Amino acid sequence: MSKETMSRRDALKLGVVGAGAAMLSAANAMAAAPIEKDVKFDEEYDVIVIGTGFAGLAAAAKAAERGYKVLILEKMGRIGGNSVINGGGMAVPNSTWQKKYGIQDSGELFIADCLKAGLGINHVELLETIVKRAQDALDFSIKCGAKWQDVKPAWFGGHSAPRSLVTDNMSGSGVIKPMHEFVEKLPGCKIMTRTKMDDFVMSNDGTSVVGVTARINYRFDAKLLSDDVENKTGEKKVYKAKKGVVLASGGFSMDKVYRKLQDPRLAEDMDATNHEGATAGALLKAFQIGAFPVHVSWIQQGPWASPDERGFGVAPLLTQQGLFKLGIAVDVRNGKRFMNEMADRKTRADAEYVILREAPKAYPVAIGTYNTFEEQVYPIMEKGITGGVMKKFDTIDALAANYKIPADALKETIKKYNEDAKNGTEDQFKKQSLKDVKGKEAIEMKGPFYAIRLVPKPHHTMGGLQINTKAQVISANTNKPIPGLYAAGEVTGGTHGASRLGTVAVTDCLTFGMIAGENI
Amino acid sequence: MSKETMSRRDALKLGVVGAGAAMLSAANAMAAAPIEKDVKFDEEYDVIVIGTGFAGLAAAAKAAERGYKVLILEKMGRIGGNSVINGGGMAVPNSTWQKKYGIQDSGELFIADCLKAGLGINHVELLETIVKRAQDALDFSIKCGAKWQDVKPAWFGGHSAPRSLVTDNMSGSGVIKPMHEFVEKLPGCKIMTRTKMDDFVMSNDGTSVVGVTARINYRFDAKLLSDDVENKTGEKKVYKAKKGVVLASGGFSMDKVYRKLQDPRLAEDMDATNHEGATAGALLKAFQIGAFPVHVSWIQQGPWASPDERGFGVAPLLTQQGLFKLGIAVDVRNGKRFMNEMADRKTRADAEYVILREAPKAYPVAIGTYNTFEEQVYPIMEKGITGGVMKKFDTIDALAANYKIPADALKETIKKYNEDAKNGTEDQFKKQSLKDVKGKEAIEMKGPFYAIRLVPKPHHTMGGLQINTKAQVISANTNKPIPGLYAAGEVTGGTHGASRLGTVAVTDCLTFGMIAGENI
Repeated sequence: MSKETMSRRDALKLGVVGAGAAMLSAANAMAAAPIEKDVKFDEEYDVIVIGTGFAGLAAAAKAAERGYKVLILEKMGRIGGNSVINGGGMAVPNSTWQKKYGIQDSGELFIADCLKAGLGINHVELLETIVKRAQDALDFSIKCGAKWQDVKPAWFGGHSAPRSLVTDNMSGSGVIKPMHEFVEKLPGCKIMTRTKMDDFVMSNDGTSVVGVTARINYRFDAKLLSDDVENKTGEKKVYKAKKGVVLASGGFSMDKVYRKLQDPRLAEDMDATNHEGATAGALLKAFQIGAFPVHVSWIQQGPWASPDERGFGVAPLLTQQGLFKLGIAVDVRNGKRFMNEMADRKTRADAEYVILREAPKAYPVAIGTYNTFEEQVYPIMEKGITGGVMKKFDTIDALAANYKIPADALKETIKKYNEDAKNGTEDQFKKQSLKDVKGKEAIEMKGPFYAIRLVPKPHHTMGGLQINTKAQVISANTNKPIPGLYAAGEVTGGTHGASRLGTVAVTDCLTFGMIAGENI
Repeated sequence: MSKETMSRRDALKLGVVGAGAAMLSAANAMAAAPIEKDVKFDEEYDVIVIGTGFAGLAAAAKAAERGYKVLILEKMGRIGGNSVINGGGMAVPNSTWQKKYGIQDSGELFIADCLKAGLGINHVELLETIVKRAQDALDFSIKCGAKWQDVKPAWFGGHSAPRSLVTDNMSGSGVIKPMHEFVEKLPGCKIMTRTKMDDFVMSNDGTSVVGVTARINYRFDAKLLSDDVENKTGEKKVYKAKKGVVLASGGFSMDKVYRKLQDPRLAEDMDATNHEGATAGALLKAFQIGAFPVHVSWIQQGPWASPDERGFGVAPLLTQQGLFKLGIAVDVRNGKRFMNEMADRKTRADAEYVILREAPKAYPVAIGTYNTFEEQVYPIMEKGITGGVMKKFDTIDALAANYKIPADALKETIKKYNEDAKNGTEDQFKKQSLKDVKGKEAIEMKGPFYAIRLVPKPHHTMGGLQINTKAQVISANTNKPIPGLYAAGEVTGGTHGASRLGTVAVTDCLTFGMIAGENI
């Protein structure tokens, strides 16, 4: 390489000052983040937030509420990332809701549940922070306008108690929309969509984050193998962040390149529950300025997804709050149950994969009856049926015939299961939630019967960068916080360990987003 | 941060030109790697190799053999990293040795074994490369002077066939010492110990590696929480690498900070099988110039280590080639077996942890008799006994009394086990290797009996940076190789997936070290 080659610093300086857009669009192919003296800031803010999911909006709302001038960058055309298509459940241990509905819970129990699912590698100080602050985060979401169903908290798989609130509209949009409006109304708060952060801008000594480079009028292109590397759309801007940057750019379940490096079984064309923009670009840039990679190899697959719809869809709600708690999931080849339908996600996804590796098209089937559904999901049942994800049958024989399940074996499975439920005896998989049924059938044999085919889908990337309890990003070069850099939500690692429990993502995102906004 | 603050570039330039050593010693606290035009090279080489383990020496030997001027940097005072204290076993599928001793094997079987232990997330193209080139790597080691025992290959846990060669002295030093001498003799090859690489030097456009910054007269300090961050000893030097740098800096099982981020159960004072210098510093610097982190959360713990010695010690050899294949491991609380003693490492370490979590001091005990030992380890048996790691008992009663194992239960366990061995029936854990015993006792009841207490120790960090089959490091910024950067051995990720099989590390390191030296 010749010494005469133009340095990246020079290129960037020239580009910004001289509007050399073509040269700059290749900046993300280069190695080091630019430093302050080599850039010219187009605009100045107190705080810059990357991402508009739960974590990003909570950070922005909290920072703006404190009087800061906040810029929020969103690379996609719409607000809300995965949060806006999420199921809207939030686990809050020791919540005012639990007290109201007489549910016993404790912080210790919540942490023990998370550690069990997380295979013991969770960062306990982050879980303790959630125990301390989740109710505050819930209250803050309500202040921002979120509406939560005023019913007994829901009982999700892997939790030892019912502790999950669900939004009024059973979607994360029930939080994102009001929070978005809240942020928009605060003075000095600005959201820019189709604006992609490309890199951090560092202080002249290279130690602190003082801004970001970004492209406006950027168009995400899902057809590219790697949008982060290949997409050259948009015009370069440089934004100063006087107080700092909050990275809330989410996970990478749709990053065809990076998810496959962690798990080569995740083929490029494999569906996930995520929106198409869920890529690793910003996370990888954070590693390049010294953030520690933590737990990045753990990609959670949702065991409650269906091959009969794209993306997240409605199956996760209909199975988790309809078919799993009192209903069953069976192996179509033999009509037998093969897992505790309420186990943690990893245990269940692994159990489904055992079947799918033996017979790739033999999707297991979840089965329930009207009484197995929780009240909250009644409005979605019809949507599931018209969309073709859920099927309704008058008899077990019709159901068995449709999925080519041996009917007699299936009847035997349900008979045994119902007996256990009725008698209050422990079923073969020691499913705790079955104890809720007393003296009657769990699956009502009069029918009708509801069924959904199951397939695990990449859902949440457990790992990311290391933060402390103040949401500060820790540097591998100093073992101390990187001044000016905060992060929250799925882009961070540690909270969930190897595998996350359902509805703890919303808790994690809102809590640490709020904390980032408080501390920056 | 003021714009007047001196930039890192300026600091480095000043430092090198003006000998500002104090300022430069803090360079590793800063973010970005320096670029070529901002440094003054003290010396120029064709190739710079970081690390003197199997991978580093193989790369150096191969590159030097091609006529290149090679500089090898070793941060410790001695050559060989973990390799020189390793057990000296190398798995070679389809080896000339196997053919000589009439052992059936295949590349497919080797890859299937690795994928099974690796939980299916191994990068198969790297395993295929090993299948193609492991014999070449073995031959190259012999050319360099390594001596391997000319006996039937050993059968290690998780392998479906005996395919592991062992060095004459049953230690990795049997490869490292001759390879070190081979390298020293080649013209233009220079090894510098106590010389720590601090960072890469990048080309002026930031895309290629053109050298390294390092410190000579550096003294590793095991007492520091993080030597990589805190140690300020040594004097700065800058070395040019005209052809490129081979990163062969090993794993991070002794990095108190980084290993704990991946698994918080690994307390700072926890022993490992590794030498004290096995830290993540160089790996983390590679992430900072864009290398992809792969599988870094997977830390393998050796299920064959003993709490009765520090570090690697002799227990791994005495258990793997003495007590596990035909002997047994028992839970001291009930005298029962609790695992297939020949399962893969993760399965066995997890099984030991189940016991140790229930009763932290109840170390399981491995038990065998003289006939259970392989000929190769006879010379080490006495060393194990005099060192206090292995104990010898005349009777089962004496053994049981010593470890407080219920004697009757233990006798019952051995009786059942011996019956299975004698009758050729499958034992409770389906241990394949037991089929080697025909018509007699596996554990000879006449004694004497040998026993070793077991504890898992962090042994090998599975993850690292992403390489291709040419040992080129892949950039997250381009999805293409970083020009001038190669890597091999434990610093890379992918080959072993979630968990490595025994003796495949030597294969991985020698093969990809050789390939890096061939391609650079």
